[in-house]
Amino acid sequence: MIKQRLFTPGPTDVPPDVLIEMAKPMFHHRTPRFKQMYGAVNDGLKKLLMTDSEVLTLAGSGTAGMEAAIACLVPRDKKVLIANGGKFGERWGKVAKVYGLDVDEVKLPWGTALQPDLVAEKLATGAYGAVVVVHSETSTATACDLEAIGAVVAKTDAILLADGITSVAALPLKMDAWGIDVVGGGSQKALMLPPGLAVVAVSDKAWRAGEAVKAPAFYLDLKAYRSKIGDNDTPYTAPVSLLRGLQVALDMIHGIGIETVWARTALLAKATRAAAEALGMKVFSKQPSDSVSGILYPAGVNDDFRKVLQGRYGCSVAGGQDDLKGKAFRVSHMGYVDPLDTIGLIAAIEYVLADLGVDVALGAGLAAASNVLRDWR
Amino acid sequence: MIKQRLFTPGPTDVPPDVLIEMAKPMFHHRTPRFKQMYGAVNDGLKKLLMTDSEVLTLAGSGTAGMEAAIACLVPRDKKVLIANGGKFGERWGKVAKVYGLDVDEVKLPWGTALQPDLVAEKLATGAYGAVVVVHSETSTATACDLEAIGAVVAKTDAILLADGITSVAALPLKMDAWGIDVVGGGSQKALMLPPGLAVVAVSDKAWRAGEAVKAPAFYLDLKAYRSKIGDNDTPYTAPVSLLRGLQVALDMIHGIGIETVWARTALLAKATRAAAEALGMKVFSKQPSDSVSGILYPAGVNDDFRKVLQGRYGCSVAGGQDDLKGKAFRVSHMGYVDPLDTIGLIAAIEYVLADLGVDVALGAGLAAASNVLRDWR
Repeated sequence: MIKQRLFTPGPTDVPPDVLIEMAKPMFHHRTPRFKQMYGAVNDGLKKLLMTDSEVLTLAGSGTAGMEAAIACLVPRDKKVLIANGGKFGERWGKVAKVYGLDVDEVKLPWGTALQPDLVAEKLATGAYGAVVVVHSETSTATACDLEAIGAVVAKTDAILLADGITSVAALPLKMDAWGIDVVGGGSQKALMLPPGLAVVAVSDKAWRAGEAVKAPAFYLDLKAYRSKIGDNDTPYTAPVSLLRGLQVALDMIHGIGIETVWARTALLAKATRAAAEALGMKVFSKQPSDSVSGILYPAGVNDDFRKVLQGRYGCSVAGGQDDLKGKAFRVSHMGYVDPLDTIGLIAAIEYVLADLGVDVALGAGLAAASNVLRDWR
Repeated sequence: MIKQRLFTPGPTDVPPDVLIEMAKPMFHHRTPRFKQMYGAVNDGLKKLLMTDSEVLTLAGSGTAGMEAAIACLVPRDKKVLIANGGKFGERWGKVAKVYGLDVDEVKLPWGTALQPDLVAEKLATGAYGAVVVVHSETSTATACDLEAIGAVVAKTDAILLADGITSVAALPLKMDAWGIDVVGGGSQKALMLPPGLAVVAVSDKAWRAGEAVKAPAFYLDLKAYRSKIGDNDTPYTAPVSLLRGLQVALDMIHGIGIETVWARTALLAKATRAAAEALGMKVFSKQPSDSVSGILYPAGVNDDFRKVLQGRYGCSVAGGQDDLKGKAFRVSHMGYVDPLDTIGLIAAIEYVLADLGVDVALGAGLAAASNVLRDWR
């Protein structure tokens, strides 16, 4: 009877209307009914990413979509610049090496993001065909200035691939206006779905850059997906239930407007950071993402924090990874989570700190969070 | 995307596991499978009410169960004492009159409960065959001392019928130990189910008292239900899905123990009252029930409070009835609601008061509630 509440940065909580849609009886994917539904999903995704380009969907995790983009679109005759500021930036470097790309990996101290000036400097050499950045690095709860990086890359022949897995539908992201060539997303984040669906939006510039690429890929061959999407079709069996759920989720998002979703996500992040600071904790990142907050444990607290928070109070948050393991926790602000959920989580965090012997004023975090969330509309 | 949260004193929120059980394909009620399930439900209800007597279930609202008990069990050759301290006490008086009973209705000021001394005094005349009390009067958020009243009535030949609709599985209630003869309950309260199922537990003393009664009742004839329950059967078509859901709900309750459920309900009530007082509001009842709290609006606030609370913050509470209409709101603490839900509601209440121009210190209610809920286990 302890309610379980999910504040992990993916999977996130799935709204009941989405769960119910996904629980409905199956239908076949080679039918007019599917095409109609898929067409609506594709339109909704374009609107979400603010792009006129096609947005492809693959049955796979967000990693599958990013790998497909790196494999199929990054030119082989030049270097690829990859920003590694955490686990996911590191992953895209590994993926690029699997495909034999000439990788220039920029290692960033955790909690910092790739700076546009560095990108400009590198690209000025003319040696780069592509740049891969993580918009919101989940492992460090850090966001880069994607708009500024987009402005730099757009002036060159290079293409910009953005891992938007924890930014799509969470952080402001205007694909066409910002000159982003590829955006990769995953279903289990701000799209409010179970895991299993990857989203890849590809600009004309990126398709041209990838024309000469012969990727050793079949299932992950983006061109196969592109060849079908004009007819609202898929090359391989489509994940019908996830796409049905996505249609409902997109209707929910567009129903209140994506700007409202961005603003609410930012407000939840601001409230969580304010509460953490009021409770004597520090935010880890120098450039915090609004989709996930990484908060350092106070002195004397270890990862028992998460065990007690989940076991006694039913709230699941993520732990730290690598160097942050046992030193921090991470809270998602994406998707189907609202101000009252956030207030409840802060109450539970206060209890856990007290349970673990930290000298904490019960209510201090609540007051700080409540004061920020006052702007909720 | 504003989450809807239900704090009304019935229907209350239904746990996902119960909803899923109720959504499963139908099966027939004249089958071994049904009998097995119904047997488990009946055992669970006896354990819940702490009684060795049979607990009957009827497809109907809580009112149907109480009407069946009044119609079928109250002796016709004596008076029936009915405590009217609110809408439900008033209702049982109306029901008794429909069946031509000789009703002595004790009108109580709203917010007060029937006192055991008065019952003793009345019954000492020997003129009464039955007493009908509302354990927790939902309209006034007031609970009587059912244990003390039970002790008084048990010493006489009269039977005690308790409306337990908002007390079963919420307030301490020990049917056999307290000498209660009839307990009526409804599914949409602390039993965590949709509306549609009435529960009626009947003691041997009550069956004996009703032996001579010829009630003009067919569907509500409790004796018909009694004749079947020994074989785990029902006289009319059983509400299969509600009973399946009840089995899951009872498993949840017994899984943590009914005493724990009672304690948690009381803690949520205590926290809500503490928060209301910290925000300058008053609890209406002189003898507050722990299953529902009735809180008076502060000066200058009317029922717009509920409109804003629901429309802007997604939290549904009940309004006042009759004299309390527009002057108070009522919050349920029954069933599938937990401390973090309660904290969230307090945050929303603070916002609404501020929205309506009340000079309120954001966080004052939260701190008070959080301090009480600290004892949550």
